[in-house]
Amino acid sequence: MKPFNTNLDLYDDSEVSKLFQSPKITLPENINFGIGMMVFPTPAQVSEACKQALDRGMTFYAPTMGHSDLRAAIASKSSEEYGVPFDGTDVMVTPAGTNGLFMSLMSLAGPGDEVLFPDPGFPAYLPQIVLCGATPVAYPVREENDFVPDPKEIKGLITRKTKVLILNSPSNPQGVMTPGVVLENIAEIAAENDLFVLSDEAYKHIVYAPYQHESIVSLDGMKQRTVVACTLSKSFSMTGWRIGYIIAPRSLMPSLFKVFQYTMTGVNSFIQMGAKVAITQGRQFFQPIIDEMTPRRRIMIEGLRKAPGISFCEPQGAFYVFVNIKRSKLTSSQMGAKLLDEHKLITFPGSAFGKGGEGYLRLSYAIETEKIEEGLKRFHACMSVLVP
Amino acid sequence: MKPFNTNLDLYDDSEVSKLFQSPKITLPENINFGIGMMVFPTPAQVSEACKQALDRGMTFYAPTMGHSDLRAAIASKSSEEYGVPFDGTDVMVTPAGTNGLFMSLMSLAGPGDEVLFPDPGFPAYLPQIVLCGATPVAYPVREENDFVPDPKEIKGLITRKTKVLILNSPSNPQGVMTPGVVLENIAEIAAENDLFVLSDEAYKHIVYAPYQHESIVSLDGMKQRTVVACTLSKSFSMTGWRIGYIIAPRSLMPSLFKVFQYTMTGVNSFIQMGAKVAITQGRQFFQPIIDEMTPRRRIMIEGLRKAPGISFCEPQGAFYVFVNIKRSKLTSSQMGAKLLDEHKLITFPGSAFGKGGEGYLRLSYAIETEKIEEGLKRFHACMSVLVP
Repeated sequence: MKPFNTNLDLYDDSEVSKLFQSPKITLPENINFGIGMMVFPTPAQVSEACKQALDRGMTFYAPTMGHSDLRAAIASKSSEEYGVPFDGTDVMVTPAGTNGLFMSLMSLAGPGDEVLFPDPGFPAYLPQIVLCGATPVAYPVREENDFVPDPKEIKGLITRKTKVLILNSPSNPQGVMTPGVVLENIAEIAAENDLFVLSDEAYKHIVYAPYQHESIVSLDGMKQRTVVACTLSKSFSMTGWRIGYIIAPRSLMPSLFKVFQYTMTGVNSFIQMGAKVAITQGRQFFQPIIDEMTPRRRIMIEGLRKAPGISFCEPQGAFYVFVNIKRSKLTSSQMGAKLLDEHKLITFPGSAFGKGGEGYLRLSYAIETEKIEEGLKRFHACMSVLVP
Repeated sequence: MKPFNTNLDLYDDSEVSKLFQSPKITLPENINFGIGMMVFPTPAQVSEACKQALDRGMTFYAPTMGHSDLRAAIASKSSEEYGVPFDGTDVMVTPAGTNGLFMSLMSLAGPGDEVLFPDPGFPAYLPQIVLCGATPVAYPVREENDFVPDPKEIKGLITRKTKVLILNSPSNPQGVMTPGVVLENIAEIAAENDLFVLSDEAYKHIVYAPYQHESIVSLDGMKQRTVVACTLSKSFSMTGWRIGYIIAPRSLMPSLFKVFQYTMTGVNSFIQMGAKVAITQGRQFFQPIIDEMTPRRRIMIEGLRKAPGISFCEPQGAFYVFVNIKRSKLTSSQMGAKLLDEHKLITFPGSAFGKGGEGYLRLSYAIETEKIEEGLKRFHACMSVLVP
């Protein structure tokens, strides 16, 4: 038989997948620091609105770009949040954040284009760039720089072919935010080099006081060259709903339509009515999540401070800590396997997030506080032996 | 500003879009032969199961490939329908048919690969092939051949680079089915040339007696080289739900996972429980649709037989007739505009379905019988003047 799409050989996740295919991964006594979501129920009003839409018979094709009232609600809330005026025609409803990123990339970049993405960063960036036929160019985000993108380093990687720069704040896997002053430097570079910015803001609402989310789209002149990709997954405990949105320059909308129409047709009609309630209520729904997560974050940070042989940057958003375990002399995957096998602790190997993630583990604190405490004990026990 | 993804220039739908952007398109006195769905409600038990799943809190990520019980239900029903044994691991749940086709193509074909697709045919094929970075190669389906693919013609288009052959039966826009003997010839060609077949079976359940759906996947040795893409949209009046499935060779599953995981993550969790009820009930749900559509089809066919200056092939499935209007000396778009402007009749210009669709109109009979009769009167009136 012929090989399948050979572009797929350009990315490989088999090493980390192996960890999650281990028969030990499902043991009930495991503590799960590997989890990628917060297990809160979707707000009841959101589910209720969805059910009512279903009862009203909203089971036919929705408009490709999304229901106009949902798009208007997103535009109105986004105008508030970003301090920039948007209207519904600036918005496209997507099947959550990952697909929103992919639709954005496909509308922007193709063969011959280079796309800059953070390493370590969200594992979908590289495959998505490859699947667009564009060339992925990793820019490092370094621990010594608090995992914040370095504008100088980005500048050094720009060529005539660079088309898109991906930003992610708060970031996955590090949970850190890019400060406003850095965003300003990057905006300048984007303007000078005529780049589009794809700003992945999946975690924009999960931010811990006193930190505040800032977006590059709020900066002067950036609305016209920035695509913001958002999801309702984390903000509203809706991971299983698969709904999100893009805010994009109006000039890009026909291209987004062209891609979305022929690869997706549109988003589920009745779940958009649930999404409208979530968007409209906004902070009323996600502040309780932040309140619930705040002590978990504190316990995780304080526990890790006492752990031997590691280092990390304090996360400001999301629900991850990215921990440097290089002094253990083990690779991320080896360490992940050891923690699972010997300590019944599930973690996410940093190498899943790019070459720059080797030697790190992503620890999630999206679990109950007692479990965080027990997991920290197990982590300490392992590190104490490795780095005495 | 730089251009967007230049691959998007390889397909263009602006001419036909223009028709549907006409202010006249929304006039209440229009008759709509342009519609691409049947306006029946989703079966109540399907909606009920979805709501119950939502009430049970199924709002978290579903497994990327779909819930295992839904995959098992699809495999079981498909084994029956195709006469070939499948199990759940042969199945991937997708956000409906269009995306299922795209995921299949992305897993199979990339730069350097040629993909054969029917012309005139479903308008998403060409854009999807282009977005994969593969090369689209149209194979003609001709009216004089009842719009059935001609194995000889296909054979003549195969090169060393040909990777995938797309089939579509019952077909959109023609509503015709590929006879078993032709499928056998095509299967032979696929085996000889080591091609994958992507069988788009979106309309497989909307088939009128005495015709019966046949699939190439049922033929000896074809299971290992055929991807079947299906949707619940038409069979179960679920266009707005966005749910469907792929049945694929087991060897392709890791590649499908690699594409789907990073571009979609998975399908909405709770709607899968509605889908399970639909799949399990099967014919009990779609036979009433066929029964409802049967007289509409007859009225449309009989009405068109009396229309001057046209020709068409009797549709056997779906809910379209593809009508040759070449004797009018107008292009499809001109004819569509004339019918809308002067006769308040919405139709779908054949040129939207590829070069081979120029000179045709797609007429849908998915509307109430009185409206079909009124639409036919308007169509006759127009044609009588053009082809006296």
